[in-house]
Amino acid sequence: MSENRCYYLTPDHHLELRVEDVPSPGTGEVLIKIAANGICGSDLHFYKSGRLGNFVVTSPYIPGHEASGVIEALGEGAGKFKEGDQVVIEPGIPCGKCHYCKTGRYNLCPDVRFLSEPGVNGTFCDYVVVPEHFVFPVPQGLSLEAAALAEPAAVAVQAVNRGRVHPGDVGVIVGAGPIGLLTLQAFKAAGGSYAVCVDKVPERLEWAKQLGADEIFIPSEQIPALENKGDIVFETAGNNASTALLFTMARPGGRCVQVGWPGSNIVPVDVAKLMEKELDYMGVNRYANAFETALAWLKDGRIVSERMITHRFPLSRIQEGFDWALAHPNETIKVIIYND
Amino acid sequence: MSENRCYYLTPDHHLELRVEDVPSPGTGEVLIKIAANGICGSDLHFYKSGRLGNFVVTSPYIPGHEASGVIEALGEGAGKFKEGDQVVIEPGIPCGKCHYCKTGRYNLCPDVRFLSEPGVNGTFCDYVVVPEHFVFPVPQGLSLEAAALAEPAAVAVQAVNRGRVHPGDVGVIVGAGPIGLLTLQAFKAAGGSYAVCVDKVPERLEWAKQLGADEIFIPSEQIPALENKGDIVFETAGNNASTALLFTMARPGGRCVQVGWPGSNIVPVDVAKLMEKELDYMGVNRYANAFETALAWLKDGRIVSERMITHRFPLSRIQEGFDWALAHPNETIKVIIYND
Amino acid sequence: MSENRCYYLTPDHHLELRVEDVPSPGTGEVLIKIAANGICGSDLHFYKSGRLGNFVVTSPYIPGHEASGVIEALGEGAGKFKEGDQVVIEPGIPCGKCHYCKTGRYNLCPDVRFLSEPGVNGTFCDYVVVPEHFVFPVPQGLSLEAAALAEPAAVAVQAVNRGRVHPGDVGVIVGAGPIGLLTLQAFKAAGGSYAVCVDKVPERLEWAKQLGADEIFIPSEQIPALENKGDIVFETAGNNASTALLFTMARPGGRCVQVGWPGSNIVPVDVAKLMEKELDYMGVNRYANAFETALAWLKDGRIVSERMITHRFPLSRIQEGFDWALAHPNETIKVIIYND
Amino acid sequence: MSENRCYYLTPDHHLELRVEDVPSPGTGEVLIKIAANGICGSDLHFYKSGRLGNFVVTSPYIPGHEASGVIEALGEGAGKFKEGDQVVIEPGIPCGKCHYCKTGRYNLCPDVRFLSEPGVNGTFCDYVVVPEHFVFPVPQGLSLEAAALAEPAAVAVQAVNRGRVHPGDVGVIVGAGPIGLLTLQAFKAAGGSYAVCVDKVPERLEWAKQLGADEIFIPSEQIPALENKGDIVFETAGNNASTALLFTMARPGGRCVQVGWPGSNIVPVDVAKLMEKELDYMGVNRYANAFETALAWLKDGRIVSERMITHRFPLSRIQEGFDWALAHPNETIKVIIYND
Repeated sequence: MSENRCYYLTPDHHLELRVEDVPSPGTGEVLIKIAANGICGSDLHFYKSGRLGNFVVTSPYIPGHEASGVIEALGEGAGKFKEGDQVVIEPGIPCGKCHYCKTGRYNLCPDVRFLSEPGVNGTFCDYVVVPEHFVFPVPQGLSLEAAALAEPAAVAVQAVNRGRVHPGDVGVIVGAGPIGLLTLQAFKAAGGSYAVCVDKVPERLEWAKQLGADEIFIPSEQIPALENKGDIVFETAGNNASTALLFTMARPGGRCVQVGWPGSNIVPVDVAKLMEKELDYMGVNRYANAFETALAWLKDGRIVSERMITHRFPLSRIQEGFDWALAHPNETIKVIIYND
Repeated sequence: MSENRCYYLTPDHHLELRVEDVPSPGTGEVLIKIAANGICGSDLHFYKSGRLGNFVVTSPYIPGHEASGVIEALGEGAGKFKEGDQVVIEPGIPCGKCHYCKTGRYNLCPDVRFLSEPGVNGTFCDYVVVPEHFVFPVPQGLSLEAAALAEPAAVAVQAVNRGRVHPGDVGVIVGAGPIGLLTLQAFKAAGGSYAVCVDKVPERLEWAKQLGADEIFIPSEQIPALENKGDIVFETAGNNASTALLFTMARPGGRCVQVGWPGSNIVPVDVAKLMEKELDYMGVNRYANAFETALAWLKDGRIVSERMITHRFPLSRIQEGFDWALAHPNETIKVIIYND
Repeated sequence: MSENRCYYLTPDHHLELRVEDVPSPGTGEVLIKIAANGICGSDLHFYKSGRLGNFVVTSPYIPGHEASGVIEALGEGAGKFKEGDQVVIEPGIPCGKCHYCKTGRYNLCPDVRFLSEPGVNGTFCDYVVVPEHFVFPVPQGLSLEAAALAEPAAVAVQAVNRGRVHPGDVGVIVGAGPIGLLTLQAFKAAGGSYAVCVDKVPERLEWAKQLGADEIFIPSEQIPALENKGDIVFETAGNNASTALLFTMARPGGRCVQVGWPGSNIVPVDVAKLMEKELDYMGVNRYANAFETALAWLKDGRIVSERMITHRFPLSRIQEGFDWALAHPNETIKVIIYND
Repeated sequence: MSENRCYYLTPDHHLELRVEDVPSPGTGEVLIKIAANGICGSDLHFYKSGRLGNFVVTSPYIPGHEASGVIEALGEGAGKFKEGDQVVIEPGIPCGKCHYCKTGRYNLCPDVRFLSEPGVNGTFCDYVVVPEHFVFPVPQGLSLEAAALAEPAAVAVQAVNRGRVHPGDVGVIVGAGPIGLLTLQAFKAAGGSYAVCVDKVPERLEWAKQLGADEIFIPSEQIPALENKGDIVFETAGNNASTALLFTMARPGGRCVQVGWPGSNIVPVDVAKLMEKELDYMGVNRYANAFETALAWLKDGRIVSERMITHRFPLSRIQEGFDWALAHPNETIKVIIYND
């Protein structure tokens, strides 16, 4: 076993290499040799701005939480895997004991420890140690690189679970970035029949079409055509204007799902429409019990990895990868950092 | 059979008596001799302001839709009741054929005809004709006067159904007017364990206590104490400020139910809290399939009528009843107009 | 407009041609010129045995209820379609007024009139009149022949709705006849990830594989391998032995759905397993609100028609079609009778 | 701190006193001084027969799992309680890591350790150590003796949760023993409107009436009157004959809940009725996330303790209590053993 290259994000917007000892797995834990990581929008945000919502980068930490790898060693009592197994990591580790953990909504655990939130090290490194019950096997036939998409795909699975997609639903997906394109695919995989995608960027809408959108819209021109369109409407753009229009786009009796964080906490919404149409409006906060479904859909091709992974960089050139993604938002869906 | 006294609400804010012929029931319809009507807040609003939301009083119509009475005659094919049966009327008559009618959400039928919406005559009269399948028998032991509460109680039943009250829930009910007090009782009847009521008016909170509230709050002083309080939070006050605070008062993983129409259509809400706490926010538009439950709970005392009916006027003095209710909002819960 | 060829099933097991007048659509009704019909297993059963469950053929009636066609004329007030529209017929017409109709479960309406149940004429003829709100448009790009599959596909949609298929579910489908193969496809369409099909007939399992089964089993040999296999288990074979094994095949916390009528009403089941595993066991009775989804999935190819329609006969040779289907159960999935 | 009296159930049907050391709480655990225990039917069964289902008494163990008590000491990291707090114990301790634990159905955890199942010591003693997150505070105003009912009441809460009691439901509860009487009360507490109780023993039906039954039936005489009676039907009697009749007693579209273990694993049921009526049939296996609701309803009087606790014995006379309960089944609801 060799050394552990760790890339720390510093408050002055650098990714700094520190070579550390390989950690040892404790009771119920496994040591994973990282194979690949996706760069998440939140990683980019912390890199560029040093903050996101209430989180502020005050000291160096390792970002990254969309990771796949190989089991390298087992801690005491760990029996779910054997050495050499290919796996992905669910990066939010809850307490396992509170009301939320006991009722199946462990993503709401107040003591959840999320790998790569400032103060908790993430997975842009060579080795990590995690509890085995938040590690999942990569299905046969799925590459480790593609499996790194399981984490953002789990957000999309959570979105369709929270929205209770019903067989035959018409869906409107606002935003065709990585999460929007994954939500589109998860919506169809979960039984949705007809998907309408909305984005400002024509290239993104072109991707949406290739990934299953039945109709595409540029919002500025054609919003009236979207009135009462969706049995279910997903906001993935994190845009105040589209959040404000969710209740307009939903059909009476429909559901609206907020997946993207809007530009500001407070958004004016049309409560009269919520009432008149008897809508349901649901928030999404990461995921719970969603990884296995995400992996199954990546394996059977309902969620594709080929078109989603647009760029690749080795770990040793991680900062280049971050810079590229920031500079080319409209040409990039997902950038993968592979461990060279 | 005698004449039919009808009280029309005119655009110049009067209730005008017109004596008309008693109508005849058509196929599948029944003729009902009205016994009592509650005055609804919407009736008062039209009386005072001549409009409510998009509805405007442009020509005289009969208000009233919280009615009980006695079956007087049966139309062809009507076989659900016999003459003399005591009944209540569900006042929204849908088309029976559209998507919403076929899926059990007939309150969303675009062709619903609601008795007493401007242009459709209501029940402040002696006789009405309605389809028998929107008429329900008054349970043994429940007075016709008390049964007139079934309609507003059905709104409360819809609120707890939409909110999916779960055994053991802690509920926060904002607003202790008629709908708030009924929602409080329906919340407890539906399995809620602990109810917190919030209102600005101390007298209303006193009623709430007598009707089952476990805790009461005057909002201006103690809102911080309500943070994360409710597994479920009901807004019944129709107040923008409290609507804006719903997501604050809900516990992570909780549900918020909008029952009261806010002062304006657009209300700024904290979408970040909806996401972070993974809340569900549901609108309520009248009711569907709620009358039988409302009647059952009125009969078994989970919803009381004695404390809810604070004042009574005969039909011949209906305008006096309207004026009284408008002048004494804090002393009135429900005013009943009985047919003298 | 020409004459109306009607094929009556007689108590002595013949299909007898009677040429009748073309009927006229009444209020809210449409006249449909039939294009194609599938032969249902129940049609075959009545043809061969003269009875099914409590239903007995005592006088001639027209069988057939899997019909597509073209709008030929509109009754008064009918406005959903125009002449020439291609449509399918939902053959169970409920009362529209009872508890079940009002709550969205109109298939349970005690007064439902089902086209082709003995005593009610079905669709093996040239023209039928039906209420327009039980008629659905054939989506662009779907042939009238393929659209005739909408009715049995609606049973499969009802099965996945009743079973609450959840994203990522592993499903076991027992029986690979027409309903089993449609349930397999609907299960996957509704979000199921992995499907195991079980049948005694190797040819049928071969079809299952082509239609998406991930694993296939011949029951006699390998039942132990199926223990705790399914998040959801569908019984479509109408077989007492497999019904008795449902609770064995379901995973703890899973669901079992009874789609096929077992050979006898009473079946011994392992109630201790139902409890120990906390299973849910759901019955399916035709469908409600399922046609639009069935049509959407036929259109987008999640339910294929090509492999499902194995044989075709013109209406004038209908009896030949019935005889063929009875004689070759293992070579036949669906026989279509087209109107020549 | 004094000695720990432990009563072991031996394979030769005795309750044998052994005085042991008081145990020490480990990490995350609490030491509880037991105040009271209810005797469960399963305790009695093991005492009398030495076995129940697959469980066999092969060596002495401590029975008892319906326990309340007082916090005596805290293990490392235990912060939920302080010394002197009154508490009840949820006796099934799951692994916290498997699929079932993570999805909120921890009662199905394959590694659940249930206090008082043969091989795992229970609570008929003076001191026990348990993980603090399976301990719940006794609400103010509820006695420790009454709180001991929380465990069987949690079964009733699970039954109404599994059955999805809906506001206004008519319920049929078969069996008026302890679990039946608790299910009756939980059914009403959860929103049920009208309860019909069925039992062979007139005394038990009399209790049912006092605890809220609206109608009572002796099964042999009046079963036809129960056909299609219940929106929801609970079997709590553990009786094959009544299990076989569940689908008859349920209304079309209704739900049946199996709470009592039938006399034999295999029971013949009418699957044709399950399908025709589109019923849901659900098993119950103990409970998950039900204790807090049980305690809330015991506190607010929806579940009464006074009429449920019919007899009391001190721990030092525990065997007398067991013998009394076995000898007088029709005069006994719940026997409490209090720690003298």
